[in-house]
Amino acid sequence: MTEKLHIIPHNYKLGQADKELKQGHKAACLWFTGLSGSGKSTIANAVEQVLFEGGYHTYILDGDNIRNGLNKDLDFSEAGRNENIRRIGEVAKLFCDASIVVLAAFVSPYKKDREILKDLMGDEFYEIYVDAPVEVCEQRDVKGLYKKARAGEISNFTGISSPFEAPEAPQIHILTHQENIEESTQKVVSYITSKLKL
Amino acid sequence: MTEKLHIIPHNYKLGQADKELKQGHKAACLWFTGLSGSGKSTIANAVEQVLFEGGYHTYILDGDNIRNGLNKDLDFSEAGRNENIRRIGEVAKLFCDASIVVLAAFVSPYKKDREILKDLMGDEFYEIYVDAPVEVCEQRDVKGLYKKARAGEISNFTGISSPFEAPEAPQIHILTHQENIEESTQKVVSYITSKLKL
Repeated sequence: MTEKLHIIPHNYKLGQADKELKQGHKAACLWFTGLSGSGKSTIANAVEQVLFEGGYHTYILDGDNIRNGLNKDLDFSEAGRNENIRRIGEVAKLFCDASIVVLAAFVSPYKKDREILKDLMGDEFYEIYVDAPVEVCEQRDVKGLYKKARAGEISNFTGISSPFEAPEAPQIHILTHQENIEESTQKVVSYITSKLKL
Repeated sequence: MTEKLHIIPHNYKLGQADKELKQGHKAACLWFTGLSGSGKSTIANAVEQVLFEGGYHTYILDGDNIRNGLNKDLDFSEAGRNENIRRIGEVAKLFCDASIVVLAAFVSPYKKDREILKDLMGDEFYEIYVDAPVEVCEQRDVKGLYKKARAGEISNFTGISSPFEAPEAPQIHILTHQENIEESTQKVVSYITSKLKL
């Protein structure tokens, strides 16, 4: 940190380009979409660590920091889910504007919603499809959600009682039932670092 | 940027402390509250420039990037304004979590809302009261909003048809009708840089 800061206000608002230049890399939104239990958060966390250690400024948006905060007023109906994704997209855009590589890990089952994200963020939006058969995800059932969904305790559960509309042309397609975490992580990191060059 | 990135995923989620250490400074939310035309955005922009040039990672949340995006569904009724500030607070908290010094410039006229922000962000929240008499603000009327409010074209306009509940114990009190921009900026920068030391 510079100890002595100079006060020379000029009528100029810092923009994304100023910050990217200082950071040494472009901003981007890596959007991980896929069923519950497909491995979105696991891969996003692993990718973030590699990028962070490589000098990138990163941040993860996921259910942990969104559903109990910004979006705690929303339910899991289709309308609630639409608004959930809309708000997350707007927040991701702000993080891009701050020159950060933001990783978002959300089921985001509707094509329409992901199209809105693409329109909102343009070339900075990268769709990463974290894919595994629903049977595999259900078997993993890390959070016990499939069990609850089968028991009827959760309604509108994607893959069980609510559809997942798979991406048709994601930038990256990960198959977590066939690849290990290292392979999936490498795939994302290799692709994205080439895109983050200034 | 490191050219070769190593893929060694470990089951660990990067936290705010990891990022603050890398950035070399703590995160914080500088919340600028005050009437329209009091100078919130001007001071926030000037403070951001000084901090940015001093090596801090900064970002500004203001009407420009919030009202047309995340909060475009909200009106200016008291309920709409409450929700506006709640969401901005949640977003500011995410930016703190990403180890950024986030500057938020919003009228935020209600004490109750600012109390919620304090509760949400704790010690990372700094209330900066950008103060000028309503007559001075109305005379400046940079955006022509007071004129519209007087003509009845804008309802619930703070200072005219809606109250501004002044902060009782802000961390910083700026008087833009008595200080120049350099003085106000210096006041904020001096105070906050001492707080941002790791």
